[in-house]
Amino acid sequence: MTATALPEMRPYPQAPSDPLRLDTLHGSLSDPVLGSMTLLNEITGRYPEAISFAAGRPYEDFYDPGQLHSHITRFTRHLAQDLGQTPAQVRTTLFQYGHTKGILTDLLVQNLAVDEGITADPDAIVVTTGCQEAMVLLLRALRTDERDVVLAPAPTYVGFLGAARLMDMPVHPVKEGTGGIDVDDFVDRVRACRTAGLRPRACYVVPDFANPSGLSMNLADRERLLEAAASEGVLVIEDNPYSLFNAGAQRRPTLKSLDRHRNVVYVGSFAKTAFPGARVGYVVADQPVEGAGAAEGGLLADQLAKLKSMLTLNTSTVSQAVIGGKLLENGGSMAAATRRESEVYARNLRAVLDGLRRHFPGPGTQVSWNVPGGGMFAVVTLPFEADDAVLEYSAARFGVLWTPMRHFYAGAGGTHQIRLSFSVLTPERIDVGLARLADLVRDRTTSKG
Amino acid sequence: MTATALPEMRPYPQAPSDPLRLDTLHGSLSDPVLGSMTLLNEITGRYPEAISFAAGRPYEDFYDPGQLHSHITRFTRHLAQDLGQTPAQVRTTLFQYGHTKGILTDLLVQNLAVDEGITADPDAIVVTTGCQEAMVLLLRALRTDERDVVLAPAPTYVGFLGAARLMDMPVHPVKEGTGGIDVDDFVDRVRACRTAGLRPRACYVVPDFANPSGLSMNLADRERLLEAAASEGVLVIEDNPYSLFNAGAQRRPTLKSLDRHRNVVYVGSFAKTAFPGARVGYVVADQPVEGAGAAEGGLLADQLAKLKSMLTLNTSTVSQAVIGGKLLENGGSMAAATRRESEVYARNLRAVLDGLRRHFPGPGTQVSWNVPGGGMFAVVTLPFEADDAVLEYSAARFGVLWTPMRHFYAGAGGTHQIRLSFSVLTPERIDVGLARLADLVRDRTTSKG
Repeated sequence: MTATALPEMRPYPQAPSDPLRLDTLHGSLSDPVLGSMTLLNEITGRYPEAISFAAGRPYEDFYDPGQLHSHITRFTRHLAQDLGQTPAQVRTTLFQYGHTKGILTDLLVQNLAVDEGITADPDAIVVTTGCQEAMVLLLRALRTDERDVVLAPAPTYVGFLGAARLMDMPVHPVKEGTGGIDVDDFVDRVRACRTAGLRPRACYVVPDFANPSGLSMNLADRERLLEAAASEGVLVIEDNPYSLFNAGAQRRPTLKSLDRHRNVVYVGSFAKTAFPGARVGYVVADQPVEGAGAAEGGLLADQLAKLKSMLTLNTSTVSQAVIGGKLLENGGSMAAATRRESEVYARNLRAVLDGLRRHFPGPGTQVSWNVPGGGMFAVVTLPFEADDAVLEYSAARFGVLWTPMRHFYAGAGGTHQIRLSFSVLTPERIDVGLARLADLVRDRTTSKG
Repeated sequence: MTATALPEMRPYPQAPSDPLRLDTLHGSLSDPVLGSMTLLNEITGRYPEAISFAAGRPYEDFYDPGQLHSHITRFTRHLAQDLGQTPAQVRTTLFQYGHTKGILTDLLVQNLAVDEGITADPDAIVVTTGCQEAMVLLLRALRTDERDVVLAPAPTYVGFLGAARLMDMPVHPVKEGTGGIDVDDFVDRVRACRTAGLRPRACYVVPDFANPSGLSMNLADRERLLEAAASEGVLVIEDNPYSLFNAGAQRRPTLKSLDRHRNVVYVGSFAKTAFPGARVGYVVADQPVEGAGAAEGGLLADQLAKLKSMLTLNTSTVSQAVIGGKLLENGGSMAAATRRESEVYARNLRAVLDGLRRHFPGPGTQVSWNVPGGGMFAVVTLPFEADDAVLEYSAARFGVLWTPMRHFYAGAGGTHQIRLSFSVLTPERIDVGLARLADLVRDRTTSKG
C-alpha cells in the first residue's frame, strides 16, 4: 500500500526532517473542542478583575491544607484498624503500585448506598483519575472500528466531547428537550444510526443539573430512557457530579438506582464534593462481558481496568487516601460532607434567578433564561449572537465574563446563549455581574437598533 | 455505507440487545500485551510464599507514611515562602483544578539540571500521571492515521507496548544489539517503513538499564542514534526510570543532555526514585510545532497539554505536593534522595551475578546471562522454553517466580529467556532463589535428556 492510495489523508511532511506541524499530529489537536477551552481560559485570564460567570470550579473557601493531613491520617487508621493491615501492608498500600481498580472499593460501596441508593457490586467499581479518565476508558472500550458511535444531548459537557475526540469516537447529537434529553429523539437517532450502518454503543447523559444546561430529567423520562436504551441495546453512561446540590428540593433517583437491566454505566466524581485537584472519580460498570478470560473477571469493569493498567496504572494512592479519609470522616456520605457548599450553591442560584428577574424585567428586554432546580449553572438566551468576540467585548467594556454556549454544541448551536456559572461567587457579586450583563445587552441591542 | 461494505470488521451483535462480548470491545482488550500482565499477576498471586524475581516494584522498606505529611508540609511552605503565594492562593493550588502542565515546573527544571545535566525549557515540561500517561499522550499526538508507526527495540517495556496498543499505534521492532538498540538496524527499519508507505514517527528507547533487558547504550551509540534519528526525521522518546541506580559506575549522559537538534522527547518518572503510588511522571517536549494558535504556545509540550486536558485534566495536586516536597528536601536531587535504595539495588545486582556464577558454573549448565551495569533487572537464557506453563511449574514445584521474556517481545521472541528482577529481595533470598532456579533447570534438562 502506498501513501497516495489512501484518500483524504494528510500529506507526509515534504522531507523526513521537516519540523512538526499541527496537521501532522492527531486530528483532535486541530478540533475546536480541544482548542476552545484554551482560548476561553486565555480570554478570562486577561481580565482577572472582571466578575466571572465563566469558571466551572467548585466553591473553595472551605478548603484548608490541614484537611489533607487529617484525611490521610484517618484513611491510614482505617487500613490498620478496619481492614486489619499490618504496618508493612499499610506502607505497601500507600506507596507501591496499587490495585488497578483502586483502594476505595469498600468505601464507595457504602457511599453509593448512603448517598445514591445504588447497591453496587464491589467487583464492578474502578477508581479513576477523575471521571474524565473513566469516560476515556469507556470510549476506548466501545470504539472498535469506524462504525462505532455514541450519542449525547446537545449541548453536552465539553469534557465528554473532548474525551470522545481523543478516542476518535463520533458523538451524534440528541435533542435536548425540556429535561436534558428528548427520549423520542434518542430512539429516532439510534435507529437512524443503524440505518446508516453505524453501531450506536452508548448514550451519555447528566440527568441532574447538567453542565452546561442546568437541566434535570423528570422521573418519567428517566424510566422511559432506561427502557428505550435497554430495548435498543444501547448503554447509558450516567455522569453525576452535581446531584447533591439540589437546592433543598427533593432529589430524584439516579438512573443507576433504577437500572433493572444492568444497562447503565455510572460515572462518579469527587471533584465537586471533595476537591478537583485530587483527581479521583470512579465508574460502576456491572455489565457482563462474554468471552473474557477467567483470570481477568467477567464484568465491563474488568475490561476498563485492563485499559487503565496501560493508561495510568492506578489512581494516585495519596489522592485516594485523602478522599477515603473524607468519606470516613462523614460516615460515607458526601451529602453530609458538603452541606455548607450546598447552601452556598442554593443561595447563589436564588441570587442568579432573582437578579435575572430584576435586571431583565419583562419580555421587552428580549432576554430569557431557564430555571434549574440546583447545580452550578443556568443558561441565558440573548437577543444577539454571543460568541468569543462578544465575550471579549463584555470583559473589556463591562467587566463581566461568561461562557458562550456554542462551545458545548461542538460548534453547531447555542449561538445566542450563554452559560452562567455561579459556584464561586457571592450574591453581591452576582448582582453586580448581572447589572453589567444588562449593560452589555443594552449596549448591543441599542447599537444594533 | 453499510456494515457489510467494510472488510475485516467484526460483525454486529446479532441483536441490538445482545450482551457485551469481548470481540465487540476495542482490539487492545483481546491483545496478549494487555492480557499477559494480568495473567502473570494471577500466577504470582497464587504463590505468595515463593521467592519472586517477577516483581518490577521498587524497594519499599524505607517508605514511611509520615513522609507523606512532611513532604506536603514542605511543599506548602515552598508555595508560600519561595513562590510568594497568599494563603488563599496556596489553597487554590492544592485543591482546585490545577494547571494542565502541573505545579512542579520550577522544581523539575532544577532536578533535571542537578541530576541529568539537562537544561530544560520550563514551557516544555508537562507533569503527567506517571510516565505511562506521558507515553499515551505522545502516541496519541503522533498517530494521525493508519500510516503512522513507531519503532522500539525488541524486547521492550510492556507499558510502552500497551500504551501503543491503546492508541492503535503499531510498534515496529528494532534489533536489540549489545547496548539495547542496534543503530544500523534502526536506520534500516526506518527506511523499510518508508518504502512500505508508512510514517515512522518516533523510536522509543530506555538507554540506561532497560526494562526488561538491563542493557545500557554506550556513549558512541548514543551519539550515533541521535544523529541517525535527526537526519531521518524520527523523534527519539527517551524513557529514563533507572539511570540513578548505576551501581557505583560512571553515569553516562542522557540522550536529552546530548540532544543538539531538539529531537529527543524525554520521559521521566518518580515511580522508582520516590514511589509508584503517587503516579507522578513528566515529559520534556521542546520540539517546535508549526501552525498552532498563539494562545496555546508553540511547543509539542503545549499540544500534549491540550490532550492531557481531555484525559486527566491535571496530575493530582496532592501527589505533586508530595513529590515536590521530596525534591525540596533533597535540594532537587533524586540521586541524593535515593542513596540508600541505590545501595540496595547495587548490592542485589552483585548478589544475582555472583549467585548465577555459583549456581550455574561453566558452560555445561547451558545457562547464560547478561551483566547489567545497574538497574533492577537481568536476563537469563535457559536451555528450554520458558513459557507461562513452566513458570507455573517453577512456582508450584520449586517455589521460585520469574518473568518469561516472551511477554516483552509482543509474543515474537525471547522464548528461552527469563527476566530476573531483584529490587525487592535480599542477598540471602536471592541466593536461595537462584538455587531453586538451578533445581528447575536440572529438572527440566534431566527430564528432557
